[in-house]
Amino acid sequence: MASRVFRSSLGLASRLRPAASFVPCQTRAFAASSRNMSAPFYSFEPEGPTVKTDIPGPRAKAAIAELDQVFDTRSLNMLVDYQKSSGNYIADPDGNVLLDVYAQIASIPIGYNNPTLLKAARSDDMINGLINRPALGNFPPEDWASVLKTGILKVAPKGLDQVFTAMAGSDANETAYKAAFMWRRQQDRGGHHVEFTEEELASSMRNEAPGASQSLSILSFKTGFHGRLFGSLSTTRSKPIHKLDIPAFDWPQATFPLLKYPLEEHAAENAAAEQAALQEVEHLLTTYRVPPCAVIVEPIQSEGGDNHASAAFFRGLREVTRKHNVLLIVDEVQTGVGATGRFWAHEHWDLPHPPDMVTFSKKAQTAGYYFGNPELRPNKPYRQFNTWMGDPARALLFRAIIQEIERLDLVANTARVGDYLYGKLEALAKQYPGQFDNLRGKGMGTFIAFDNPRRDEFLLRAKKFGVNIGGSGQSAVRLRPMLIFQEKHADLLVEALEKIVKSF
Amino acid sequence: MASRVFRSSLGLASRLRPAASFVPCQTRAFAASSRNMSAPFYSFEPEGPTVKTDIPGPRAKAAIAELDQVFDTRSLNMLVDYQKSSGNYIADPDGNVLLDVYAQIASIPIGYNNPTLLKAARSDDMINGLINRPALGNFPPEDWASVLKTGILKVAPKGLDQVFTAMAGSDANETAYKAAFMWRRQQDRGGHHVEFTEEELASSMRNEAPGASQSLSILSFKTGFHGRLFGSLSTTRSKPIHKLDIPAFDWPQATFPLLKYPLEEHAAENAAAEQAALQEVEHLLTTYRVPPCAVIVEPIQSEGGDNHASAAFFRGLREVTRKHNVLLIVDEVQTGVGATGRFWAHEHWDLPHPPDMVTFSKKAQTAGYYFGNPELRPNKPYRQFNTWMGDPARALLFRAIIQEIERLDLVANTARVGDYLYGKLEALAKQYPGQFDNLRGKGMGTFIAFDNPRRDEFLLRAKKFGVNIGGSGQSAVRLRPMLIFQEKHADLLVEALEKIVKSF
Repeated sequence: MASRVFRSSLGLASRLRPAASFVPCQTRAFAASSRNMSAPFYSFEPEGPTVKTDIPGPRAKAAIAELDQVFDTRSLNMLVDYQKSSGNYIADPDGNVLLDVYAQIASIPIGYNNPTLLKAARSDDMINGLINRPALGNFPPEDWASVLKTGILKVAPKGLDQVFTAMAGSDANETAYKAAFMWRRQQDRGGHHVEFTEEELASSMRNEAPGASQSLSILSFKTGFHGRLFGSLSTTRSKPIHKLDIPAFDWPQATFPLLKYPLEEHAAENAAAEQAALQEVEHLLTTYRVPPCAVIVEPIQSEGGDNHASAAFFRGLREVTRKHNVLLIVDEVQTGVGATGRFWAHEHWDLPHPPDMVTFSKKAQTAGYYFGNPELRPNKPYRQFNTWMGDPARALLFRAIIQEIERLDLVANTARVGDYLYGKLEALAKQYPGQFDNLRGKGMGTFIAFDNPRRDEFLLRAKKFGVNIGGSGQSAVRLRPMLIFQEKHADLLVEALEKIVKSF
Repeated sequence: MASRVFRSSLGLASRLRPAASFVPCQTRAFAASSRNMSAPFYSFEPEGPTVKTDIPGPRAKAAIAELDQVFDTRSLNMLVDYQKSSGNYIADPDGNVLLDVYAQIASIPIGYNNPTLLKAARSDDMINGLINRPALGNFPPEDWASVLKTGILKVAPKGLDQVFTAMAGSDANETAYKAAFMWRRQQDRGGHHVEFTEEELASSMRNEAPGASQSLSILSFKTGFHGRLFGSLSTTRSKPIHKLDIPAFDWPQATFPLLKYPLEEHAAENAAAEQAALQEVEHLLTTYRVPPCAVIVEPIQSEGGDNHASAAFFRGLREVTRKHNVLLIVDEVQTGVGATGRFWAHEHWDLPHPPDMVTFSKKAQTAGYYFGNPELRPNKPYRQFNTWMGDPARALLFRAIIQEIERLDLVANTARVGDYLYGKLEALAKQYPGQFDNLRGKGMGTFIAFDNPRRDEFLLRAKKFGVNIGGSGQSAVRLRPMLIFQEKHADLLVEALEKIVKSF
């Protein structure tokens, strides 16, 4: 097949070399061209994508066939040469280099082979965390308080000053659920100091009430996604393929207010949908056969199709949960760490009272839940516990990510570039009716999506035009650029999006 | 208080320095003293423990108080200075250095600051895996097949040649359960190619049958431990404190044959107990109201109190599960990677047919489940999936661990040293009746335990005598030395154990 080369790659493949060869741009006085409104953050990125072969190309195909012998490859999207990937660009073994606005399912915060992370990875602290992995609940490192305070907790959501560390989004959510169940049952018993009864002790071992709380639940929203283990999957309501054949708890689901776009043309209708959703939540909290002790919600339903709701809706949710003594858990696994133009997406809501727990993972490269209320520490040790309770190496990486976000003011960058990108997409949507439907994410940084009637083909074709994009829900094209995505990248993306729809 | 110094520490604190200063002992011709039957594996360990202060000492106390402001420290056992820890020795901020036979709840395979791991941690591959974390199911690195084949899969249990990678023991077990549920339901539907019904698709989203498999279960054993998330906790039956207040599935439990010791004095009784347990399993498989599609079992119940059963029992379990078309999942999270004197503990059983799945974590420093039957790959992609599906940095660490185990023949070392240690403990048990009760783990490497009537005090006092030891179950002292534990360490341990019981 003919190879397509959009522009000559710089060929500066980011092989792992001494950090000095990756000097971050020190000066912001770089002469910006008319297209490039900001100076580049790093000097080692290519100027644009390079597409040399079909993806997968011949080398990738051979490697995938080898991998499939031992590891299921049916969900494989693209085989990657990470050492050759750099910044916003993902490379494959056939020499293709794509602008990556999927970013490992929204999990790469500050680009491939980031020089600051390279330095952190080479530090004595990191190597120590890697090769001497502690059981953090039993044998924490002497500097664990400092690692937390200068890292994970430095960016703790307002009102939350403690953390339980975990491994990934699923167990972050599930340990938050466990904290919620223990909290409510302690209240029901009359406080932290009331001992368990003999009947509770004995029945818990048989998975039976009253020891196992079969009479409490977690409420989640339809089209929400909170993970794939047994407890988190019971709250996930995204797609049947995630849930089929797996036993689930009898926990309730409320309707998420699926807004109509453009928002300004459907204001009254959307407000009514949100009001109805809040009423359904209240109804379920007060009448469901297994009463919820907590509600979990994503600020923007991501896997479920990039579904947004207004700040007023979330303030209403905080109000109704407080009214009924139910905890509010905000799942910021995908929305957290800057991509919405705030460090945490729920900062957009202006809540009068903070969420009770906020879970994180993905761009944090580690995971856990934040909380503030000391009652959310269970009444006895070893109730919320496991061997590793996270990974100090990954906690150190998050600290380095935070430092880089602060140094380059990347949350503000993402807010600004998001607005720029959104404006360009609005123009595209007008120009190509029916191709960029329900454009959403205005004012939410680069956390932007739209629907396309041929979504799956759209995503496949994107690669041919030099861009790696993901989907969500039934028909959404979800954009999840990294925090180092700049106006010049937005221009390249918009150019490719136009080529895709023109090719239909 | 007076400081206790058992022998002068070498003061060669293993600070992170260039690898050259940690030269592993190349020659095994080292002149072994009469006490030291083998040459040391590494030259940087101290000669023995050093106890300078109470544990926690003043520095640790201050750091723990600081940590407790943000992180629950009630399960804290010992605050650790990992950079000063080396080999079999764990150090704290007050200058105390203990022989560590707990090893981060059986999770450190080849010692603190192991020079081979230090080298691996500094490699380009590792740094790449750390800073460019992939979504392994979607965007695997081009060398992922090679990383698996030269690492995780190089030590795959006989008969199992595929792996699903995970983060820790809990999700390794839960994803194995998910594979079991999907496997059985596919059989019930009539095969991989039978599509889901509309009713299944719709009901799964409501957490209801027939889409959610409310009618299938996982059978586990009383006093077993398989993790603490909602699905794994439903199979965990170790202690109420692990289970209280957490909703659980209606899944069955069978009695684990709690053997009497010494085994040779209770042969008939123990055989009868095992036979009864197998009959109970068969009864539950055929009559339980929620029929099991899989049985999960630990080769040695670890958290539950170091409960052993004979190879014949496990062969019987394999037979009865095959007879009833039920999968056998062997949970080798704690027993795997060499500590029983075989790489996998179930190799001791001489099974005519391999287990269907074997889960691993802890000493592997990564996690997942092995399987062989291609039917255990679900019929469609994205059924067994999550964002990270493991961590390549940790997979690379396991590969380095495997290489070191092979280079130094550490499984054979552990078998030999285990026998040596067991012999010494048998002598102690005779000398101090009632102090080393139910000594168990003969022929199982260093995976040895005994009961002590004042177990908790025993463990506390062990630190004063220079040893870090853990407990399990109600009264067990569980020994979990690393694979680099040698005869000289066994001598030091036995000396300390004797001092403890003499001090009572």
